[in-house]
Amino acid sequence: MDEKYIKKMITIGRDFMKFSEEQENSDFESDQQLKKPQPPLTKAPMTDSRIDLPKNFEDLEIINDFTRILTERKSSRVYTQTPVTLLQLSYLLWATQGVKEIRGQNYATIRTVPSGGARHPFETYLVIQNVEGLENGCYHYLPMEHQLEYLHSFEEKNISITTTLVGQSWAEKAAVVFYWSIVPYRCEWRYGIFAHRPALMDIGHVGENLYLACAALELGTCGVAAYDGDSCAKVFGLDNKEEFMVYTSPVGCLK
Amino acid sequence: MDEKYIKKMITIGRDFMKFSEEQENSDFESDQQLKKPQPPLTKAPMTDSRIDLPKNFEDLEIINDFTRILTERKSSRVYTQTPVTLLQLSYLLWATQGVKEIRGQNYATIRTVPSGGARHPFETYLVIQNVEGLENGCYHYLPMEHQLEYLHSFEEKNISITTTLVGQSWAEKAAVVFYWSIVPYRCEWRYGIFAHRPALMDIGHVGENLYLACAALELGTCGVAAYDGDSCAKVFGLDNKEEFMVYTSPVGCLK
Repeated sequence: MDEKYIKKMITIGRDFMKFSEEQENSDFESDQQLKKPQPPLTKAPMTDSRIDLPKNFEDLEIINDFTRILTERKSSRVYTQTPVTLLQLSYLLWATQGVKEIRGQNYATIRTVPSGGARHPFETYLVIQNVEGLENGCYHYLPMEHQLEYLHSFEEKNISITTTLVGQSWAEKAAVVFYWSIVPYRCEWRYGIFAHRPALMDIGHVGENLYLACAALELGTCGVAAYDGDSCAKVFGLDNKEEFMVYTSPVGCLK
Repeated sequence: MDEKYIKKMITIGRDFMKFSEEQENSDFESDQQLKKPQPPLTKAPMTDSRIDLPKNFEDLEIINDFTRILTERKSSRVYTQTPVTLLQLSYLLWATQGVKEIRGQNYATIRTVPSGGARHPFETYLVIQNVEGLENGCYHYLPMEHQLEYLHSFEEKNISITTTLVGQSWAEKAAVVFYWSIVPYRCEWRYGIFAHRPALMDIGHVGENLYLACAALELGTCGVAAYDGDSCAKVFGLDNKEEFMVYTSPVGCLK
């Protein structure tokens, strides 16, 4: 790669990170401003196979000392083969994308994480490998219903977790791998060509809640921003255009 | 703005959000791979005016119920004029950028938030307006020392908080406004032209910790991804190239 190209790419990358003056002074009108119909708040269920998730979080063993949670939060890439319980998984799903309230006439969801304009453009997919009471396989989270839907077996896709995470083989031993996709039009409807920078910050909010919730439950996790978009799309049946992968986090037990 | 241009910008924005195949198959070598010297882990102090921050966090009134913290976290844009205490501010700084450990021979900091490759490319600046025991003005956080340095008065810059946040005048009543900059070379040294996407996710981790720490202290905050880079740079003396603004969060009391 020649130096001039690298310099250009660095400039493009840095500029992307900035709130642009173009946005401030732009005559751009978003689809919301143009009064185009709002996209659905969440993706429609893909199957009829629903599993209710327990919400008796008071029965969980949680480290409730917030300073200790912050102190003990770390990236863990080694997991034991102890299964994660369904209640723990339910808590992690609620902590990262749980819906607390619906505003207006399905105008917005208020969730356990903040998102620019309350657009919450993400979907949560799981590869389950070792969760008590759940068949192994690929799942999709339904945040409105706090349910999981079973999509299909993982094996039938003939793709390894290592492949989806471009070679990070330590993740194979995770009890469950979180794969977050983005449905970009959900935030583009409101923010148009300026939607993508804040959406990356928003998925950071989500990832951090998973980290802290894992610390609170004494589970291990490690955010992974490197993934193979094509194989993730194949595993979960995404079109890789109107919905594509954006962040991943394997989770497992530490003891 | 014509439709073709909008379409092109949407594609560029979406592509930026993806882990690129280019990265996977690239012959790009980062400065770390080229064995170029590592940049400093933190920005050098800008003044001699240091203030030790208290760390007796056990004396804080903290909601030590993690589920309640997640439930009560929200975006608050209305604040009372009750001052934030120095111990509360110290906690918020520690929760967002506090250093827990230094790895290797100054190779990396391990902090209260995760960051790709433990690069932690951010700096924290504050405009203090109502914090017990602190003169109002502009400050810079020194994470290694857990100190603040006083930079200068805010008034002398003749720029309003509203201007720095492109018109969000509700922030004027904040007791303190967090302004996070990025020193991009700190992560580009390791990730080069691929550094910017994960860095945006990393600042999301930081912002979420501020949200949750505020909820734990019953303070109000609201992440603001819209800011005027030029006026922020003027307020804190950034060159807007090797260091520029990336996220902001006003904080104030709720009662």
